[in-house]
Amino acid sequence: MSSEVIDSNPYSRLMALKRMGIVNNYEQIRNFSVAVVGVGGVGSVAAEMLTRCGIGRLLLYDYDTVELANMNRLFFRPEQAGMTKTDAAVQTLLQINPDVILESYTINITTMDGFNKFVESLKRQVMSHTRGGSTGVDLVLSCVDNYEARMVVNQACNELGQTWMESGVSEDAVSGHIQLLIPGETACFACAPPLVVASGIDERTLKREGVCAASLPTTMGIVAGVLVQNALKYLLQFGLVSKYLGYSALKDFFPTMEMRPNPQCSNEACLDRQKEYLEQKPARDAAKAAAELESAESEASIPLHSDNIWNISVVEDHEPVSSVSTAKQENLPDGLLWELPTADTLETTLSEEILAENGDLDDLQRQLDALNAS
Amino acid sequence: MSSEVIDSNPYSRLMALKRMGIVNNYEQIRNFSVAVVGVGGVGSVAAEMLTRCGIGRLLLYDYDTVELANMNRLFFRPEQAGMTKTDAAVQTLLQINPDVILESYTINITTMDGFNKFVESLKRQVMSHTRGGSTGVDLVLSCVDNYEARMVVNQACNELGQTWMESGVSEDAVSGHIQLLIPGETACFACAPPLVVASGIDERTLKREGVCAASLPTTMGIVAGVLVQNALKYLLQFGLVSKYLGYSALKDFFPTMEMRPNPQCSNEACLDRQKEYLEQKPARDAAKAAAELESAESEASIPLHSDNIWNISVVEDHEPVSSVSTAKQENLPDGLLWELPTADTLETTLSEEILAENGDLDDLQRQLDALNAS
Repeated sequence: MSSEVIDSNPYSRLMALKRMGIVNNYEQIRNFSVAVVGVGGVGSVAAEMLTRCGIGRLLLYDYDTVELANMNRLFFRPEQAGMTKTDAAVQTLLQINPDVILESYTINITTMDGFNKFVESLKRQVMSHTRGGSTGVDLVLSCVDNYEARMVVNQACNELGQTWMESGVSEDAVSGHIQLLIPGETACFACAPPLVVASGIDERTLKREGVCAASLPTTMGIVAGVLVQNALKYLLQFGLVSKYLGYSALKDFFPTMEMRPNPQCSNEACLDRQKEYLEQKPARDAAKAAAELESAESEASIPLHSDNIWNISVVEDHEPVSSVSTAKQENLPDGLLWELPTADTLETTLSEEILAENGDLDDLQRQLDALNAS
Repeated sequence: MSSEVIDSNPYSRLMALKRMGIVNNYEQIRNFSVAVVGVGGVGSVAAEMLTRCGIGRLLLYDYDTVELANMNRLFFRPEQAGMTKTDAAVQTLLQINPDVILESYTINITTMDGFNKFVESLKRQVMSHTRGGSTGVDLVLSCVDNYEARMVVNQACNELGQTWMESGVSEDAVSGHIQLLIPGETACFACAPPLVVASGIDERTLKREGVCAASLPTTMGIVAGVLVQNALKYLLQFGLVSKYLGYSALKDFFPTMEMRPNPQCSNEACLDRQKEYLEQKPARDAAKAAAELESAESEASIPLHSDNIWNISVVEDHEPVSSVSTAKQENLPDGLLWELPTADTLETTLSEEILAENGDLDDLQRQLDALNAS
């Protein structure tokens, strides 16, 4: 991956991230394998972004075909109508960047056979270097559009101890979210009770009744953008990876929160990962103390960068999110005043993200009312 | 524009926005003309989004050619290297949606000749319906990458009284912004002193020295997404159009603020528009009072939608932004608690957006220090 600044180098603007001090190791992106599950409005754009970033290896999963009705989202072209989404995606992505190793799986992961193939493909070691963990991929990005498929990704990742990111866009097209799921450490997709979806609504009725969910290329593009941006931050270890980031298009509101795992989670693999995570606590605490000691020593010798008025810095994973606003206020020049949240995180056992999946607000409220009444 | 739910209808998912109650008049998008100035990392994606949304008419401006070094952003394909960006964009967009009227202008708007052609093209009335104003376009989206071109768009829009939206991505690729500029009503691009850019740094030195700015398809895609999302909200009159929305990728921080016009603005056309805006205040106040009276009467007869727990609603343009958080807290179900800003707007005469343009924080601080010391 060359950093030479010539018009013919597709990586010059990416390698410039090193010169700018944003990413220390950009060329390592060639070593990473990322799985994109669901190649629809979000997944296809996420795959294109990763491809243009020069990701090492991309695994694509979908069983659907391209339709003209998909043309209101980015990526697919009208002449690809009728092709499988995986074939169409490989066609386009290969053309954009032949350096990327593409593997496509035209399978339905919610079937028993599909699930087994999915798990086997995640375990296969192809690249020499991974971000840690025992699988053959560094990160799984879930870009599916239904609850059942999310639960399948959740099951596979819990079993494998595989870190993944979930994404979703509401059926009214004006909200979305991404979420980071680290088995045992953060809430899994089954940890928070999926009140709405588990109550018997079949999402497939939408198509059967001759109606369809709304979608917008803007919302899909924004969700794909924040998903891959956080994937890059996670893989290349710069900035702060969001645990949960929501997006409300009507008001340009971007809530963040964190969700802890549920000790009563119904998913047994999740409970196993939680147990392992707790058992590893002494080792983590020791490593953290050592890192803090080292950090304190280096701070004593090197003065704080007091002239960084925008407070842009590489943030340690363990730094509490609430310190963002405090730090920002202290470093603003005279005459500028920020009115920020004193804390922008929220810990809750009720998953907003699962509630937000449901586009029909009235129906959701009726179900909550019924639960409260019973 | 058909709302029929069949696989062959490219507009079914867009027209579903009507059934979902998000947009009352989606099909009106066929009547709008939007100018996209600069068809680079942000502008090309913005143009594709508008094309897929079925915009009526799209005017594209750029004089640059596609290079392989552009392949780390979405949209252009390697085989288009060497073509002008306008030609390549028209080729791709026509293929995606032949319903859109495309006009491309391969001109440099910062030359005298280019500026005149730019202004004439904006004035030309082609579509029968516009969103108001005396020009032939409903909105101008500035997606240029330098200060000089932004000042030219500003000049043209001030002269024409043309509402426009500005966008930008920092040279370190990890922050960006969009801004709504309504001549006379909000700050124009010259209203806030551009401390950094006007201090003698020639942005073109970047290329001359064999170095280049960093860029990421994620940041560009997110900025294009929020730009076009706000353009859709503005054109189709739903939701709340952001006056300014920033994006900091390292911390997923999205600040908002409003900027009032500067009565001492150096731009004469801006001062003319400010004068007109003040003169029209009595008429605006009367219209606002009438609208509030009507709103109060309709609220008395129709009960509030008390079961809308997510508080998703169409927001009037004149509703204060600070009411967002209050309304949200009231409507959350038991067990959920939001920690939100009490106000997320900031009025200041110092343009954060212009400061954010500068990727070198140390240099920026040195300049501010020098100003304070003098």
